[in-house]
Amino acid sequence: MNKVKVSIVGSTGYVGAEVVHGFLNHPGVEFVYLTSETFKGKKFSDIYPVYRGLLDKKLVSTEDVSYETIGRNSDLVITALPHGVSSKVVPQLLDSGCRVIDHSGDFRYKDVNTYEKSYKLEHPKPELLKEAVYGLPEIYRDELKTARLVANPGCYPTCSIIALTPLLRNDPVLINRQGIIIDAVSGVTGAGRKEKLEYSFCELDEGFKPYGVTGHRHSTEINEQLSFISGDDSGKAVKAAFTPHLAPFKRGMLASIYCSPSQDFGNISTEKIIDLLTKFYENETFVRVLPKGVLPDVKNVSGSNYIDITGVYDEDTGLIKLFSAQDNLGKGAALQAIQTFNVMFGFPEQTGLSALTRGV
Amino acid sequence: MNKVKVSIVGSTGYVGAEVVHGFLNHPGVEFVYLTSETFKGKKFSDIYPVYRGLLDKKLVSTEDVSYETIGRNSDLVITALPHGVSSKVVPQLLDSGCRVIDHSGDFRYKDVNTYEKSYKLEHPKPELLKEAVYGLPEIYRDELKTARLVANPGCYPTCSIIALTPLLRNDPVLINRQGIIIDAVSGVTGAGRKEKLEYSFCELDEGFKPYGVTGHRHSTEINEQLSFISGDDSGKAVKAAFTPHLAPFKRGMLASIYCSPSQDFGNISTEKIIDLLTKFYENETFVRVLPKGVLPDVKNVSGSNYIDITGVYDEDTGLIKLFSAQDNLGKGAALQAIQTFNVMFGFPEQTGLSALTRGV
Amino acid sequence: MNKVKVSIVGSTGYVGAEVVHGFLNHPGVEFVYLTSETFKGKKFSDIYPVYRGLLDKKLVSTEDVSYETIGRNSDLVITALPHGVSSKVVPQLLDSGCRVIDHSGDFRYKDVNTYEKSYKLEHPKPELLKEAVYGLPEIYRDELKTARLVANPGCYPTCSIIALTPLLRNDPVLINRQGIIIDAVSGVTGAGRKEKLEYSFCELDEGFKPYGVTGHRHSTEINEQLSFISGDDSGKAVKAAFTPHLAPFKRGMLASIYCSPSQDFGNISTEKIIDLLTKFYENETFVRVLPKGVLPDVKNVSGSNYIDITGVYDEDTGLIKLFSAQDNLGKGAALQAIQTFNVMFGFPEQTGLSALTRGV
Amino acid sequence: MNKVKVSIVGSTGYVGAEVVHGFLNHPGVEFVYLTSETFKGKKFSDIYPVYRGLLDKKLVSTEDVSYETIGRNSDLVITALPHGVSSKVVPQLLDSGCRVIDHSGDFRYKDVNTYEKSYKLEHPKPELLKEAVYGLPEIYRDELKTARLVANPGCYPTCSIIALTPLLRNDPVLINRQGIIIDAVSGVTGAGRKEKLEYSFCELDEGFKPYGVTGHRHSTEINEQLSFISGDDSGKAVKAAFTPHLAPFKRGMLASIYCSPSQDFGNISTEKIIDLLTKFYENETFVRVLPKGVLPDVKNVSGSNYIDITGVYDEDTGLIKLFSAQDNLGKGAALQAIQTFNVMFGFPEQTGLSALTRGV
Repeated sequence: MNKVKVSIVGSTGYVGAEVVHGFLNHPGVEFVYLTSETFKGKKFSDIYPVYRGLLDKKLVSTEDVSYETIGRNSDLVITALPHGVSSKVVPQLLDSGCRVIDHSGDFRYKDVNTYEKSYKLEHPKPELLKEAVYGLPEIYRDELKTARLVANPGCYPTCSIIALTPLLRNDPVLINRQGIIIDAVSGVTGAGRKEKLEYSFCELDEGFKPYGVTGHRHSTEINEQLSFISGDDSGKAVKAAFTPHLAPFKRGMLASIYCSPSQDFGNISTEKIIDLLTKFYENETFVRVLPKGVLPDVKNVSGSNYIDITGVYDEDTGLIKLFSAQDNLGKGAALQAIQTFNVMFGFPEQTGLSALTRGV
Repeated sequence: MNKVKVSIVGSTGYVGAEVVHGFLNHPGVEFVYLTSETFKGKKFSDIYPVYRGLLDKKLVSTEDVSYETIGRNSDLVITALPHGVSSKVVPQLLDSGCRVIDHSGDFRYKDVNTYEKSYKLEHPKPELLKEAVYGLPEIYRDELKTARLVANPGCYPTCSIIALTPLLRNDPVLINRQGIIIDAVSGVTGAGRKEKLEYSFCELDEGFKPYGVTGHRHSTEINEQLSFISGDDSGKAVKAAFTPHLAPFKRGMLASIYCSPSQDFGNISTEKIIDLLTKFYENETFVRVLPKGVLPDVKNVSGSNYIDITGVYDEDTGLIKLFSAQDNLGKGAALQAIQTFNVMFGFPEQTGLSALTRGV
Repeated sequence: MNKVKVSIVGSTGYVGAEVVHGFLNHPGVEFVYLTSETFKGKKFSDIYPVYRGLLDKKLVSTEDVSYETIGRNSDLVITALPHGVSSKVVPQLLDSGCRVIDHSGDFRYKDVNTYEKSYKLEHPKPELLKEAVYGLPEIYRDELKTARLVANPGCYPTCSIIALTPLLRNDPVLINRQGIIIDAVSGVTGAGRKEKLEYSFCELDEGFKPYGVTGHRHSTEINEQLSFISGDDSGKAVKAAFTPHLAPFKRGMLASIYCSPSQDFGNISTEKIIDLLTKFYENETFVRVLPKGVLPDVKNVSGSNYIDITGVYDEDTGLIKLFSAQDNLGKGAALQAIQTFNVMFGFPEQTGLSALTRGV
Repeated sequence: MNKVKVSIVGSTGYVGAEVVHGFLNHPGVEFVYLTSETFKGKKFSDIYPVYRGLLDKKLVSTEDVSYETIGRNSDLVITALPHGVSSKVVPQLLDSGCRVIDHSGDFRYKDVNTYEKSYKLEHPKPELLKEAVYGLPEIYRDELKTARLVANPGCYPTCSIIALTPLLRNDPVLINRQGIIIDAVSGVTGAGRKEKLEYSFCELDEGFKPYGVTGHRHSTEINEQLSFISGDDSGKAVKAAFTPHLAPFKRGMLASIYCSPSQDFGNISTEKIIDLLTKFYENETFVRVLPKGVLPDVKNVSGSNYIDITGVYDEDTGLIKLFSAQDNLGKGAALQAIQTFNVMFGFPEQTGLSALTRGV
């Protein structure tokens, strides 16, 4: 079988590098270009010595190899670029004939106004928003199979949506669309590979803090998707309150979600919540619903594409608490892109991904 | 001036040892007995070598020195014992004539039924619940001055109550007593000094998880106190949903609290929330209200008795978000006990505590 | 092709579990028994939830399934047992007809006196010491192919021997056999999965310390092997001074080794040292010799079977400094056993191991 | 009593800030100027929010307040500046009449050639090298009392010298001056407060590595001082091999030192080594000699000015192993400067320092 020709634009950030890592053991993929503006001319393993002898491929700059050339020579290009840059680069890549999975926020919204307000940017190609498929295979698998442009979801949206969808995507919806609270914690790789004092070891070790407590961009992404999933095509029905925190570990993300059962829920219990989650995801490889009494821990999904979820009913308050743990670079970014790649190119979904769990 | 004679019962757990640490530089204190059943006969500095040369005092067992003797020879005994044990030991100490600050949950409730349901224990001395003063100097300073028995608050209750009190202790109350959500994160010292696999380095490092997600004992303690503070003498008006998490750092605790303004709040803004907090605590040494744009971080209170709080108004959802950070062993336990000690024995409140901040 | 039938005795310690992890993606292996005395009847994924859905196999006790049965139904048994226990179990397994890779120190020595003095135990089957092959494929590959009993090397010995062998296994030897100093640092998994206060998060985080600074068992193992490798069949020629340290990370080990060039070295330089290392290991998959100016870091080998080594000549003192980094559970234990398994059963050496590197 | 007027030049780096922290509770000090070029106009507590309410003093730039002014208005100026900068600033300060404790390498050498070779800089004021006193109170206490210029020692030199001095400062010397090996490990604050990718959390957490393995500047500082201490006025007699490593903790440093007893040592044993260390430091507050069987751990000195040392005799190899643990910012830098300050201005040496230990 011919291998799929894949290029990674922005391959040396943490997301780009994890895409590379994930594909390293994928039997159906051949790398064409790995780009880096900062490190062009160096080998990938010079930047990440962990891959010495495993991936010594030279990094190229898009000043030397045009997007047109990259796109023409690739079946798929994965872009790991800042928002505002992706929206300019992706159209060029698409025009050259390849398919694209983009990691930025630039193609994740259907409503361009929500995007422009959230990112404080004018979108140069709003017509692509309609075409772009939101890259959550558990929700949009069919559309992804033939998608030309995939907007890989944000990390916080992924763990929020996976946990809430079984309760929202029901007619009638089983929880109230109002009053959802999402309190989430990310490892430091979520901030990207940056020369910033605030992400230095001495500033973060033995610390823990909230950040972006109002107006975080992922809020609007979460709300638009949750609205769609709950049957509201306007994308406005759900207004979850979202608060991210930064914790002193490298990889992983945990969301603790609070919501209230709708009148249509009927008799409620922890067992019933878990049963709903289990049935909804019974055919999904990467969503693991934990049984009563077992709670997610980011260490159990670190390095992998798994997301562990569960729920409890809190009798004292009448609230449902949902918990989801994933690797922010795994199911929250790069490895979810590989899962989507498998959907797009006809591979079994776990191809290349099954070996990535970490024991201790 | 005569020094106050202080004994610590259970001095080698993390809370007991931090009480010792805090008192080490207190000019008005003299240690009488430091007890340890596990390590009796050893020196305190054998167990905590950090104090070699600073505190080489010998540990005694309560098998060898009776509670009666300890109480008789001490002005104050601080007990750092498990719940269910304190309720038996504290009455003996009180009978011998000393004052007591207890760290367990055994004397924190006014309603014995709530205690018994929460701790699944019968209380042997329910009549002491009425006398015991809840050891939050910011709320109960006057009562503490003359208290014979102080119930030092739990760590999660302290950071929850300090953040919420300015909005609840108002007539009319400024937030709805229903629907409060407290999502909190603790460092590992919160679990105590235990030989348990689940608290081993390899099981916790690079991990993050919720625990005790329903029915955690601190829920009822929080709710009873918040009810009192909000003017409800029954202790039942507030039903906050509380969820603790465990994070890979040693010391510190952060609470993220979600609540909604009551009809009586009037015009609401982040500025107004911060203004209310600031005014409420303007004479308090250890509560620092952070200005708009600055958020608490556990690293900034680590090792100290400070608690940093702030609040924001989330226009998108109409919710108030409050954040508080403290050291779980500091303001959350041992150092708060020393602040209370200062109140009880007439020292300026910061005596012995001002040097305990940690730079980097 | 028929799969090799493998059982793991002691599968839930960190070494045993990492053997399981490593084999999970090995195409030529089928698990027969995973034993655990502590957790018998539970599923492997109950103990390590990271493997939920990946390995839910039930754990059996050797009280219920005899060593004879295990050995008879397995082509290979991997034992991850304490020393003193292995020496009793392994003979029973061998008698039942299987091959064995043992992780304890019980079969690593040729001189039974050295073993007995080091471990303070009488060896019940000294005759097996002659037969056992020391499981370092880079040194004993040919013997391993047909070995019935393999003594998997200690973690400290592996990183010491791999670094020093190119300079010692030469005629004449290129460094002095006397005066070698090995200063090494291990992550906490090296201490095993234990309910001990000294390995708890709060006792180790933000700490660093030496331990076992004289008479550590790995000293004699290192010295016997280095002597053999240097051409001394008595096993006594090399007397390296060895000092281990414990550092606050989970996986990884770094050795800093100090030695002096022998008179036969000739002109010496960093380039020449690196050249010698490079040539010695040019056909080895898992030994990566780093070029001048690049130094090993445990993070680059974490999770994998790689060992990164390099050397420098210190002109100021005339000493050679060698550095090697490996994962203590990887090349230092479980994954080296899988590499050896591949040698024993005719698989390419990297089978099942290539996907185990960790990006960030 | 009048307070000593102290200014800190470069107060917001980790060393400068720890000097500030240490002085915060010193009863005999009054801050005059805290300078920062990067953060001028902000409050010290804006940069280190841990000090909010404790030290809100405004930072000034030396563009706005001249060195002449700073020096004239201060009894003592503590400089925490890069090498090459200090050598230009310190003479100006001295000229204005104050005393100076400098943290750079610029005044630590007696031999200007060694300095210039080590730092690859020409020294603008070599005549000051003769006057400067090396700021180790345990060795140079008398000279420090009246010193106008103190060169605060490097962190690695401090822990090396304190451990070795009792064996070297003897006539005859008790260890061979040749063949000393110093293998040392630093926490990340040792690298300073820098916006560099290599010190980011994700690049260091779960890692461990050597660096600067030949020609590290502290080598020559160590060797010059050890030579002096051993009675060699040329500063050339000792040629220790020094290798630093970087470990994933914030504060602390451990040195493992290997040396051989000289012919004059006589009968050797661990007991005798410890006895020598104990006697040498019997009147020192901050050097704690650990008894046989107890080894230093950086966690036990973290935050404080203590240095814990011990030694063992390794019968198998005939080597002496010495171990010392200190806080790299404590005894290794800022707090040692405060100890020296106490010597210079006539305070008891522990003034302001005794409260800085950290419990857990």
